[in-house]
Amino acid sequence: MFQHTQRLQFEAKPEKPDPVYAHKLQELVGGAYGEMTVMMQYLFQGWNCRIKGKYKDLIMDVATEEIGHVEMLATMIARLLEGAPATATTKVATSDPAVGAVMSGMDPQQAIVAGGAALPADSNGYPWNGRYAVASGNLLADFYANVAAEAQSRLQTARLYKMTDDPGVKDMLKFNLARDTYHQNLWLAAIEQLREDNLEDVIVPGGLADEEHREHAATLWHLSDGEAAAAGLWASGPTPDGEHEFSVLADTRPLGDKASPPPPDPKLFATYDGSYGQPKGPAMGTETGLRGKIRDTLSPDE
Amino acid sequence: MFQHTQRLQFEAKPEKPDPVYAHKLQELVGGAYGEMTVMMQYLFQGWNCRIKGKYKDLIMDVATEEIGHVEMLATMIARLLEGAPATATTKVATSDPAVGAVMSGMDPQQAIVAGGAALPADSNGYPWNGRYAVASGNLLADFYANVAAEAQSRLQTARLYKMTDDPGVKDMLKFNLARDTYHQNLWLAAIEQLREDNLEDVIVPGGLADEEHREHAATLWHLSDGEAAAAGLWASGPTPDGEHEFSVLADTRPLGDKASPPPPDPKLFATYDGSYGQPKGPAMGTETGLRGKIRDTLSPDE
Amino acid sequence: MFQHTQRLQFEAKPEKPDPVYAHKLQELVGGAYGEMTVMMQYLFQGWNCRIKGKYKDLIMDVATEEIGHVEMLATMIARLLEGAPATATTKVATSDPAVGAVMSGMDPQQAIVAGGAALPADSNGYPWNGRYAVASGNLLADFYANVAAEAQSRLQTARLYKMTDDPGVKDMLKFNLARDTYHQNLWLAAIEQLREDNLEDVIVPGGLADEEHREHAATLWHLSDGEAAAAGLWASGPTPDGEHEFSVLADTRPLGDKASPPPPDPKLFATYDGSYGQPKGPAMGTETGLRGKIRDTLSPDE
Amino acid sequence: MFQHTQRLQFEAKPEKPDPVYAHKLQELVGGAYGEMTVMMQYLFQGWNCRIKGKYKDLIMDVATEEIGHVEMLATMIARLLEGAPATATTKVATSDPAVGAVMSGMDPQQAIVAGGAALPADSNGYPWNGRYAVASGNLLADFYANVAAEAQSRLQTARLYKMTDDPGVKDMLKFNLARDTYHQNLWLAAIEQLREDNLEDVIVPGGLADEEHREHAATLWHLSDGEAAAAGLWASGPTPDGEHEFSVLADTRPLGDKASPPPPDPKLFATYDGSYGQPKGPAMGTETGLRGKIRDTLSPDE
Amino acid sequence: MFQHTQRLQFEAKPEKPDPVYAHKLQELVGGAYGEMTVMMQYLFQGWNCRIKGKYKDLIMDVATEEIGHVEMLATMIARLLEGAPATATTKVATSDPAVGAVMSGMDPQQAIVAGGAALPADSNGYPWNGRYAVASGNLLADFYANVAAEAQSRLQTARLYKMTDDPGVKDMLKFNLARDTYHQNLWLAAIEQLREDNLEDVIVPGGLADEEHREHAATLWHLSDGEAAAAGLWASGPTPDGEHEFSVLADTRPLGDKASPPPPDPKLFATYDGSYGQPKGPAMGTETGLRGKIRDTLSPDE
Amino acid sequence: MFQHTQRLQFEAKPEKPDPVYAHKLQELVGGAYGEMTVMMQYLFQGWNCRIKGKYKDLIMDVATEEIGHVEMLATMIARLLEGAPATATTKVATSDPAVGAVMSGMDPQQAIVAGGAALPADSNGYPWNGRYAVASGNLLADFYANVAAEAQSRLQTARLYKMTDDPGVKDMLKFNLARDTYHQNLWLAAIEQLREDNLEDVIVPGGLADEEHREHAATLWHLSDGEAAAAGLWASGPTPDGEHEFSVLADTRPLGDKASPPPPDPKLFATYDGSYGQPKGPAMGTETGLRGKIRDTLSPDE
Repeated sequence: MFQHTQRLQFEAKPEKPDPVYAHKLQELVGGAYGEMTVMMQYLFQGWNCRIKGKYKDLIMDVATEEIGHVEMLATMIARLLEGAPATATTKVATSDPAVGAVMSGMDPQQAIVAGGAALPADSNGYPWNGRYAVASGNLLADFYANVAAEAQSRLQTARLYKMTDDPGVKDMLKFNLARDTYHQNLWLAAIEQLREDNLEDVIVPGGLADEEHREHAATLWHLSDGEAAAAGLWASGPTPDGEHEFSVLADTRPLGDKASPPPPDPKLFATYDGSYGQPKGPAMGTETGLRGKIRDTLSPDE
Repeated sequence: MFQHTQRLQFEAKPEKPDPVYAHKLQELVGGAYGEMTVMMQYLFQGWNCRIKGKYKDLIMDVATEEIGHVEMLATMIARLLEGAPATATTKVATSDPAVGAVMSGMDPQQAIVAGGAALPADSNGYPWNGRYAVASGNLLADFYANVAAEAQSRLQTARLYKMTDDPGVKDMLKFNLARDTYHQNLWLAAIEQLREDNLEDVIVPGGLADEEHREHAATLWHLSDGEAAAAGLWASGPTPDGEHEFSVLADTRPLGDKASPPPPDPKLFATYDGSYGQPKGPAMGTETGLRGKIRDTLSPDE
Repeated sequence: MFQHTQRLQFEAKPEKPDPVYAHKLQELVGGAYGEMTVMMQYLFQGWNCRIKGKYKDLIMDVATEEIGHVEMLATMIARLLEGAPATATTKVATSDPAVGAVMSGMDPQQAIVAGGAALPADSNGYPWNGRYAVASGNLLADFYANVAAEAQSRLQTARLYKMTDDPGVKDMLKFNLARDTYHQNLWLAAIEQLREDNLEDVIVPGGLADEEHREHAATLWHLSDGEAAAAGLWASGPTPDGEHEFSVLADTRPLGDKASPPPPDPKLFATYDGSYGQPKGPAMGTETGLRGKIRDTLSPDE
Repeated sequence: MFQHTQRLQFEAKPEKPDPVYAHKLQELVGGAYGEMTVMMQYLFQGWNCRIKGKYKDLIMDVATEEIGHVEMLATMIARLLEGAPATATTKVATSDPAVGAVMSGMDPQQAIVAGGAALPADSNGYPWNGRYAVASGNLLADFYANVAAEAQSRLQTARLYKMTDDPGVKDMLKFNLARDTYHQNLWLAAIEQLREDNLEDVIVPGGLADEEHREHAATLWHLSDGEAAAAGLWASGPTPDGEHEFSVLADTRPLGDKASPPPPDPKLFATYDGSYGQPKGPAMGTETGLRGKIRDTLSPDE
Repeated sequence: MFQHTQRLQFEAKPEKPDPVYAHKLQELVGGAYGEMTVMMQYLFQGWNCRIKGKYKDLIMDVATEEIGHVEMLATMIARLLEGAPATATTKVATSDPAVGAVMSGMDPQQAIVAGGAALPADSNGYPWNGRYAVASGNLLADFYANVAAEAQSRLQTARLYKMTDDPGVKDMLKFNLARDTYHQNLWLAAIEQLREDNLEDVIVPGGLADEEHREHAATLWHLSDGEAAAAGLWASGPTPDGEHEFSVLADTRPLGDKASPPPPDPKLFATYDGSYGQPKGPAMGTETGLRGKIRDTLSPDE
Repeated sequence: MFQHTQRLQFEAKPEKPDPVYAHKLQELVGGAYGEMTVMMQYLFQGWNCRIKGKYKDLIMDVATEEIGHVEMLATMIARLLEGAPATATTKVATSDPAVGAVMSGMDPQQAIVAGGAALPADSNGYPWNGRYAVASGNLLADFYANVAAEAQSRLQTARLYKMTDDPGVKDMLKFNLARDTYHQNLWLAAIEQLREDNLEDVIVPGGLADEEHREHAATLWHLSDGEAAAAGLWASGPTPDGEHEFSVLADTRPLGDKASPPPPDPKLFATYDGSYGQPKGPAMGTETGLRGKIRDTLSPDE
């Protein structure tokens, strides 16, 4: 259960309105690596965390903070839209190019749909969606994803930081940059912690190393004509998990046969000339269980 | 420019059809962490790579391999659908529960839309989309994302590996598991290489460390009531980037004021009682450049 | 800023696992009228609310509660998936129709993607997205939307209540039904409050009643051949806003001319035979402002 | 079955082209609350209506009208694009800021994809989709949704009305505003009619009031720190449905235990330390029906 | 403007309910090639048609028919859902595999969201969206698209026809198949008519044949290792437009240089080592128009 | 399996940067008819092709070429963005309208997300998705779709060709136009080849002509009031498939009864007054198979 205070985690007042920038800032609200993503990602990871104690507690701390980050950004966007020329008519815009330039750079839905406020969408107006949030139940896989998300997030924040001169906006972004720095460090430390606790190792998921085709687990297939790829740390020497030696497969020949689909079901009306043989009738899989016994009892000939 | 051989990178023949499993395998084709994602992600990263030589060459090698992985999986799915009871009528299905169970677990679009073949969609029938692919131009950010993608991918492959007994399918997945192991190791090594080459450090992006609010760059805000979060490596000791000491902020008070939106533009018909003051008229931003000079010349009074 | 306790608002323990039902319950998590929608809808409405005091305070109370409802449902779904036969191989499923039936009704992504947990998606696997959340800044419009959302939500909850016999699940849904009852009553009362406070009336938005074409503001256009539509309260008598008398336009003739598009720009290669006249060259709109003056000064002939 | 006349329901000729406004007007065509939504919403509600007579007849009348509204708006957009500088090259645009401002504010797809015409998309270019249309079979739930849709629609129309000076466009919008006024009144009257006919009451759906947890059906949980929420009509006095007395729960303590997920299936490779106990094997549900009997007969020991 | 009769274009009564088939039939309602697509595609094509007379009249005739096809299918789906075991609890389903199989194959949203009716979505539950509808203003391009849409539509209808034994359903599909036959013939005839009327030729769009690089307009680039491609009508002989001779380019060498991106803007924090040279500062394009003159006048040195 | 050379199929260097045009060019990368669509469409068609030899070989040749087209366009977009004013602050933009106009017309995500590069999205920022790619297994259906795709593609390319003066960009587009010309001719020839090989005829799919309702297979239903539709080749004379004579049904009366949904399941809480009769209980379909026999044996009375 959650509780809320109307005070912001960090103050967010722009010096002056900037509706063009308000449009761009949507990326940090509803983009693939915006605050809605980390908020929902950490919430679902926390609810799904199968380890009592420090991991679950940590994830819920950070998840809860991120809801407040969406709040900060949504508030900032509304403030940047104050006095925006959203309802100045087009006649004004075309007679005054400066007005026109500003109006053209605005997000039409921030005015028409939200009445001068933020939207749960990105800087191209595409709505946030649930496929962005990763919560697999495997903490190492998810912490890698969290490092990646915070890295993209700080990168985008840094780019946006370079797109404004407004000291108020920059002040808020300095806070966001710092939190993204912390969160990158945090998830890197959490990965280290998983290893110290012997819960996970380097490769996700632990296990199956003996079942997979080991001979293909450390080789770069050279399939593009740049030669320099053989010069990197990924091409020779021990692998980070300590299990293999990197190598390069320079002469890349396919291991499989010519790809061929099966003959098609004639009732599906695929174009077919019989070149892959006769289609099979419907197959139901093996029937060795209870049902098979019954069939033998009642209908031995079927 | 690309070239193609019809031979598969690795053979992919199931022992027998399994249309229910063919449905699940769509996750590895068109899911958020399926092969279409890494294929498009690496292609765009390679085209966008601003470093001549080993990084670009590496990325293009791997990107090109991934196109072939989509091919392997699409071929496997078609083979798993051979003899699927897609066109058996419902009457048969309801009179024979085993048929019914199989038909219920099938992807209707694999039959109706693709005629017994793979779709560019995931295991819930949701189409692959371009927001899945990450290519930011910052190699460290993208390599973190690549580790994360390969980790989720190997995790999902491992889960699917446990959902089948078919030796042919398992054989192909053993190859996929191995490649995902290599690709995790590969991107981890590439991260190390970036540091060795002094191109990037630990935190993405390099820079702005002096401008961000440093005092907020290493502190866990304790906002959920589990106490154990203070016990992890993320709560004390040096940060992975070596720049900070982790700490915990146990008494979390907001730093900002009460969040308040600005007064709304009356032409946008927001419900308003004046409690946030008078709305401002449209503001255009500063006009100190060429246009300002012209205005002064021609219309000094405006 | 938000805070969190790991205790649930209401307990949510099923008597036994039911992975088929866990699939259906996704509708209440990530459907168009699921808890993620009201959570994000109320959060954005609250942040966007331009009235200090009771309205904003109310919206934030309810928004904060809804985050906890997503938590309850996500927890319930994980519990319903305990011991689900997600990784039983297909061979087992087809030899035992009961297993097959259960496995067919499961959400493949709950296992493959989330590792046995809830997803931010609906019961057809379609991800939640930001276009579901309505926050317009006009409180009457939004409260109408809130009544509608809570009504659909309680309706779907009632349907799901009839699809299970599990006493634990039913117990949680009895809480959800009650909250949806309250929330419907709540937003209806809030609409009444807006009228008492003279902030809004019946029709959204207030204003423009004198500018709109009043003669079309109360007439049912009879365009389908069922005659009974003329018998309802919407066909005669005073309108709910007290401004009009309802009437029926039985003989419905178009008021406009034949629809005709303008002649096309030849550079856009539309198929055209000249039947709508000569295309116009590009038009820029009026130029009566500063730019017009400059043009007159510098290039009088253009 | 439908029939069509090429004459528009209402005339829609702009005085002059305005491609920037044509972009914004897309919101009324393909936005979440645009005409395509009400058109499809009412069509599906009508086809799904389980009451013969006045309700079905009414819904089909209005649904049929809305197809014509999409037609009016699509025609208006094409006319606004006449002579739009879509194919003026960028060189012209950057040398003449007024042209640049106009071109920047245009929808690129209206030119590139539609050849100078409307798209089934909103003002940010996002396509209309079927999740917008609500048709539940419960008329009260759907009429609430219809009031809400017409309210958002008139609000957005009013905002767009304030963004143009073109008398032709304004004339069409005056018709649209009036129809939206009527449709709000209409659905409010239809709600009243449902009550008069004793088909529905206040809360959706009727029923379950005795089964739900009544003690939670009328209480505001105070979870955010604004105190004023206790002052509204939703906090004390009778509820609109006449069944409860509103109250406020000021001291909000969770009713449930600490949220805990079940132990995970080891084959799904979640990170796990055993802290929630041993995982259960796959459970199939009860088997007391026909299948259970057979099993007892054939395989008593299983 | 449209009018409606409640009578269906063709009768649509199934002999008995079949909720599994009702799920599959959604493909014909809201799939990429379902009736909603051709309905919206033809409506937008008709409104966008720039030729007065037979083409526009034709398109509007067919568009109007298609609205009625959505109606037929939606009605059929509701009828197929009559008596569907949607609300039988899971306990029943797992104890009786036949019930379980039926319930597993049902669309959960048809019950939970629509109350036993059709949805504007496809057979995987993915909502119809506006990007499916093609209306470019070029009639030849659009008629090619219409032939393609009707072909996919009849193909899917044929597949569905083979998935049922119900004589009522088959009777309706026989009507649909016939209409799809007509519509394929129709659009092929319409393509012929465009050529007879000298409005369009074979290639879309007419024109630019002299500007394009003619030497690349008729050659098959041999980029995959199957040799048989050289044996088809596309490899030698005259092209269908009569303008070229087909040929095969067997030795496919790239015509361009190594792909290289430009040096990146340092403020965007791409990883960069200078290997592509120094980044350029922001460039605004040529300024030879009015603005250039002004600049020369006021700020000659800039 | 695929291989790659870093050399482009055709050179793609713009004379000067043009970030506004880079935005528009996204349509050819990730639009519904952009290069990603034909690339994925042909790949899936090739993998799904059930005919050994020339058809499969052809499709794979063209599919492989299209991957290189995405590469060319992505490279061109990055080059057009060189020196783009993406990080110039808004202050500069509003003080200099020319800068403002350019910045307003840019794609914010090309800078914020991709760091100055192409995105897998269209010119409105909407991501490419898998529902665009058609691969049905029926070659005639798919070749019609391919003609349609290449036609829309060349049309959009032609429009973009008219929107730039840059000789480098135009040079690349001249190559693209030529390839689209070839590909239209190619698929038209391939359709001819299918007929010569007696694999398909005119109508998709072959077959069912004797089962469909022939009397409805050649008639134009006149449902809109334009009279000229009766004058086209589609209204009289033989049909293109040679099987029918076109005719016009001028007096269009519905063939079906009034549409009526069945009585609803009361547990789904639809609003209902009994007007369509009593609801049926759940129906499971016929049970004449093995399960029926068992039931007769064990539970004769059920």
